[in-house]
Amino acid sequence: MSKKVAVILAGCGAYDGSEIHEATLTLLRLDQLGIAYRAFAPDIDQHHVINHLSQEAEEGETRNVLKESARLVRGDIQPITELDADDFDAVIVPGGFGVAKNLCDFAEKGDAMSVLESLKAPLAAFKEDAKPIGLMCIAPVLVPRLLGDGISVTIGRDPSVAGAISAMGGLHKSCDVDDIVVDLEHRVVTTPAYMQAQSIGEAATGIFKLVERIDEMIDQTNK
Amino acid sequence: MSKKVAVILAGCGAYDGSEIHEATLTLLRLDQLGIAYRAFAPDIDQHHVINHLSQEAEEGETRNVLKESARLVRGDIQPITELDADDFDAVIVPGGFGVAKNLCDFAEKGDAMSVLESLKAPLAAFKEDAKPIGLMCIAPVLVPRLLGDGISVTIGRDPSVAGAISAMGGLHKSCDVDDIVVDLEHRVVTTPAYMQAQSIGEAATGIFKLVERIDEMIDQTNK
Repeated sequence: MSKKVAVILAGCGAYDGSEIHEATLTLLRLDQLGIAYRAFAPDIDQHHVINHLSQEAEEGETRNVLKESARLVRGDIQPITELDADDFDAVIVPGGFGVAKNLCDFAEKGDAMSVLESLKAPLAAFKEDAKPIGLMCIAPVLVPRLLGDGISVTIGRDPSVAGAISAMGGLHKSCDVDDIVVDLEHRVVTTPAYMQAQSIGEAATGIFKLVERIDEMIDQTNK
Repeated sequence: MSKKVAVILAGCGAYDGSEIHEATLTLLRLDQLGIAYRAFAPDIDQHHVINHLSQEAEEGETRNVLKESARLVRGDIQPITELDADDFDAVIVPGGFGVAKNLCDFAEKGDAMSVLESLKAPLAAFKEDAKPIGLMCIAPVLVPRLLGDGISVTIGRDPSVAGAISAMGGLHKSCDVDDIVVDLEHRVVTTPAYMQAQSIGEAATGIFKLVERIDEMIDQTNK
């Protein structure tokens, strides 16, 4: 039976949703390794809509996170409330500012952030079953509040985000764009992706390494 | 001096814009080969907005092709009117139904289609300079009206689209998802991508082959 990974999305676009390259490269490497995937996203309004040309917020425009996330997977997606960890071997959360705006409120509140309620139960189940959890770019800010204290993660080398992770009880390790940080005890893998990357090729190196490590960790779980 | 390729986008999403995976995989392979790229899109309203979850049109919603395309390239894009073939070694048009809805009206009119006016001059300049032109998925329907009669292309194996290309004066060759069709005389390279692909990994094989062939053809031009 083929391995199966859940991918959690937060909209479609670097500045108000999931980072498009990060999500796509995650799906590519999963598929190349013969791993099946299903995408999930919350059925809620986006925090806001950013005009990606001017990088300004669009006044009076509303978009739905689940509908926009559907663009990233050609419509093949389910609401996050239907995510059951029993059906999957691992879970991956690509980055993009939508993670800090729609899956939690880190973008507004920093280390006083809270995590979207509907994310908590499914992610707790992955952790309880010791199934690997991958997060990239800004998504590791979720880890302390979502998975608990004392878990090693990276968001690259941004001092203020690293400091906020630390203030929330996480352990931040600096990391280059082509590398990953692995917390073996808690089974959490992170990579900086576009927190560090200057090009899509740079982002791909770390993201591919993350997916490959998740694949190896699934093999260990299933032994 | 590094090679430089123009990438033409048509929005952001398989059903009303550029196919996200196809566009991203094109950028990835260009960057991996050390080829610089710039993205361009028309500054016009989309034909319509499709809810990618239900695949139905959203009544009363309008989006701009340039703004949505900007999502695919983290904001780094210019209006198509600023595309000057002199600045580039080749041009690539990823697919997605936005190509058949925003860059031409093939989706509505079939072989009675016409091409967006602002696309004509820049593409004619690439052709005149014998610079390679790559198109994937549904985008090869542009070729007869945009580049002229008697040019070999593929959209895979869809009989009605192949028939329409033929009716407009094109030469359609059937092709598998992992392969490309090259018209050496006219310097046009095409691949079926999601017209045939059952997975992102399948789409990647043909898209990577197309980008690699464009790269080789640029070397021949520059000799």
